[in-house]
Amino acid sequence: MTEISPVGDHVRLGDLGEHKILEHILRPRYGGVRGFGDDCAVLDAPEGLRGELVATTDSCPTPLVTILGETDPYHAGWLLATINLSDLAAAGATPIGLVVNYTLPKTTTAGEFRRLLDGVDACTETHGTKVVGGDLRDGPVRQLTATAIGRCVPGSRLGRAGAEVGDRLLLVGSPGYLWSYALLVEEQARLPESLVAEIRQRACRPTAQVTAGRTLATAGLARAAMDVSDGLFPTVRTLCGANGLGARVTTDIQLDEALVDVCKQSGLGRFELAQAWGDWTLVVAVRPQDVELAKKTLAGEGIAAQEIGTLVPREQGVSLDDGEKTELWDGIAQERFSPSSWHGGDLPKLITEVLGRRAG
Amino acid sequence: MTEISPVGDHVRLGDLGEHKILEHILRPRYGGVRGFGDDCAVLDAPEGLRGELVATTDSCPTPLVTILGETDPYHAGWLLATINLSDLAAAGATPIGLVVNYTLPKTTTAGEFRRLLDGVDACTETHGTKVVGGDLRDGPVRQLTATAIGRCVPGSRLGRAGAEVGDRLLLVGSPGYLWSYALLVEEQARLPESLVAEIRQRACRPTAQVTAGRTLATAGLARAAMDVSDGLFPTVRTLCGANGLGARVTTDIQLDEALVDVCKQSGLGRFELAQAWGDWTLVVAVRPQDVELAKKTLAGEGIAAQEIGTLVPREQGVSLDDGEKTELWDGIAQERFSPSSWHGGDLPKLITEVLGRRAG
Repeated sequence: MTEISPVGDHVRLGDLGEHKILEHILRPRYGGVRGFGDDCAVLDAPEGLRGELVATTDSCPTPLVTILGETDPYHAGWLLATINLSDLAAAGATPIGLVVNYTLPKTTTAGEFRRLLDGVDACTETHGTKVVGGDLRDGPVRQLTATAIGRCVPGSRLGRAGAEVGDRLLLVGSPGYLWSYALLVEEQARLPESLVAEIRQRACRPTAQVTAGRTLATAGLARAAMDVSDGLFPTVRTLCGANGLGARVTTDIQLDEALVDVCKQSGLGRFELAQAWGDWTLVVAVRPQDVELAKKTLAGEGIAAQEIGTLVPREQGVSLDDGEKTELWDGIAQERFSPSSWHGGDLPKLITEVLGRRAG
Repeated sequence: MTEISPVGDHVRLGDLGEHKILEHILRPRYGGVRGFGDDCAVLDAPEGLRGELVATTDSCPTPLVTILGETDPYHAGWLLATINLSDLAAAGATPIGLVVNYTLPKTTTAGEFRRLLDGVDACTETHGTKVVGGDLRDGPVRQLTATAIGRCVPGSRLGRAGAEVGDRLLLVGSPGYLWSYALLVEEQARLPESLVAEIRQRACRPTAQVTAGRTLATAGLARAAMDVSDGLFPTVRTLCGANGLGARVTTDIQLDEALVDVCKQSGLGRFELAQAWGDWTLVVAVRPQDVELAKKTLAGEGIAAQEIGTLVPREQGVSLDDGEKTELWDGIAQERFSPSSWHGGDLPKLITEVLGRRAG
C-alpha cells in the first residue's frame, strides 16, 4: 500500500495528536475500507446474511464516577459495555454479542472481579445481548477492552456521512447527568437525597441509545449518526467534517428539571452542562420533514429527543446560536495523543476543563 | 445469576491462578454460553445466515523475538493478527475481518506505528482478510488487542469437545521454529546464514493454520481442535479435559531438518523443542480411519501434519510414550495469574523454563 504522507517517521504520536494521526497515517492506509471513520466497522457479509454485520471495539478508561468516589468495579464493567454498545447504536445496529478482553493486576480480588463482570452482564442484558466470550490475563495495570458485534437490517446501516444541508440535528437521550453528579459531589449544588440518588444512578449506569438508533435507522428516519462519546462539540464538528458541511447549533438545549436546578445553583448555563460527555447520547441528522415523526417515534419508546440545530453549507462553519446572535463555536474538545487526552485527574480542574467555566 | 463458588470475595486472582478463576468464577457464570471454553465464542446467528459466526479476542504480549533483538514493531503487529487468527483456525472458521484496539505511549513514533500496522496488515492479507476498524488511544504502556470475526459453514464449527476414545491427535504445522531461533541467538547452536535467516523469518512471522482448520472442518475430518498457544502439554491436557478423556502422546515428534540439527547441537531432544509454544500449530482430534485422508488433504495444501498420539479413557491420564515406556506427562505449562504467567524476562532463564532443560 502506498502512503503519501507529510508525516515523517521520527515524529512522535504525542506531537501529532489524534486528528493528524487519523488524517496522515490511518486514512491513507484504511480510508478505502467501508465504514472508515464511522463509529462501527463493517464486516465482509457472510453468504446468505440479510443486511450487514458491524463491529466496534473500545477500551474503558477509569470511569469519572470512580474519581467521584464510586469505586465499585461494577461501574467500570457497565461503562465498558455501554461505550461499545453506544457505537452500535450510532450504526442503527442490533447487538448480537460482546467479546471482552480484560487485563487485571494479580492483586485484584475475586469480589472485585465478580463486580466487574456483574456490571458488564447487567448492561448487556439491559440491551438484550450478552458476553459470548473473551480473554483474561494478568498485567501490571487494569485494562478493559471489549468488542461489540451487531447486525443492521438491509439498507439501514447508519454512518457519519449521508446528511445534507438543511437536515436537522436531533440530540437523542438526556444529557447532563454525569457532570451534574460531579457538581453535586463537589458541593457546587445541593438537591434532596432522592434526586441525588437518581442522578447518581444515571451517572453510574448510562444507557447506550441502542433502541433509538435501531428504531430511527430501520424506519429510514436518520441519515447519519454519531454518539456523543467525547462531548457535543467534537461530535458535531466530526459529523460536519464527514459530510463536508457546517452546522448551526442552538444553546437552548433542554435538560431534565433537576439538572436545571443544578445549573442554577452552580452558576452554569444549561448549555455548558448539556455539551459535556458521559451520557452516551446520540446526534442524528434527520430530514426537516421527518423531525416530528422521529421525535414522536422515540417518545413512543420513552426516549427523549430534541432538535438542537441545522446542517448548513461548509462555508458557514460550525456555529452556536444563542437566540440573539450566531457565533463560531470553538467548543471544548479533548484530543487523544495531545495534552487534552482524558486520563482522569483532579476533580475541580476536570470540571473546569469539561464544563468550560466555574460557578461564580 | 446465582453463583455457587467456594472462592470468597477477598481471595486475590494471583492466589487463585487461571484454572481456578475459570472453574470457580467464569464457568458458574458463563458455562452455559455456547462455545464456552473453546478458542472462539459463538455469536447469535443473524437472520438468513448459513452457518455460524464466531469471534475471538486476544492481546499480544511482548513477542519473544523482541527479547531476541528483533525490535521492529512489525513483528508485534504480525503476532497480534496471528494470535487471533489462530483461534479462528481452531474453530475451522474463515476470517471475515479483524478489529484492532491499540493503546500506545505518546512517545511512539509515526515510523514505529506504521511498522506495527504493516505487520498487522501483512498478516491479515496473507490469510485473505483485513483490518476493518479499530480504536486508538494513548496510554502509559503499549497494549495491543484485536478481535477476529469469522464464519463457519453449516455444521462445521470445531470446538474443544467432540472427540472420543481412540481418536488420533494430529499436530498441524511445523513446531520448533521460534525456540530454535532463541537457541541460535543464544549461540547454543550454529547454522549456515541462509538457514538462520529462514528460521528467523518463521520465528518472526508465524502462520496461523487457518487453511488447515477450515479444510479439515469443512471436510468433516476433525472432531475437535485447539491451537497450541501455550505449549503442547497444556493444549493436550485442556483438550482431554474438555472431552473427559486422557491421551497418550509420543515423544517421537518430527521436526524440520535444520531444527533437528539445532537440537543436536544444543543437547535437546526433539520433543523438548517440539512441545514449546510460539509456532501456532493446531492439535486436532481425528477418527483413526480419517488420519491418512486428513494428512493427505493437508499435504495437498502444502501443510505439514503428523500423528502425535491417541485419546484414551480418562483413567489412563495424559501420558508420554517414548517407544519403550509410557509415563504420566507432567509437562511445562505456564498459567496466567500465577508465578508462571508469561511476561518475558531473561533469555537463558526463559529457555530453561520453556524447553525444560539446557544444553549439556
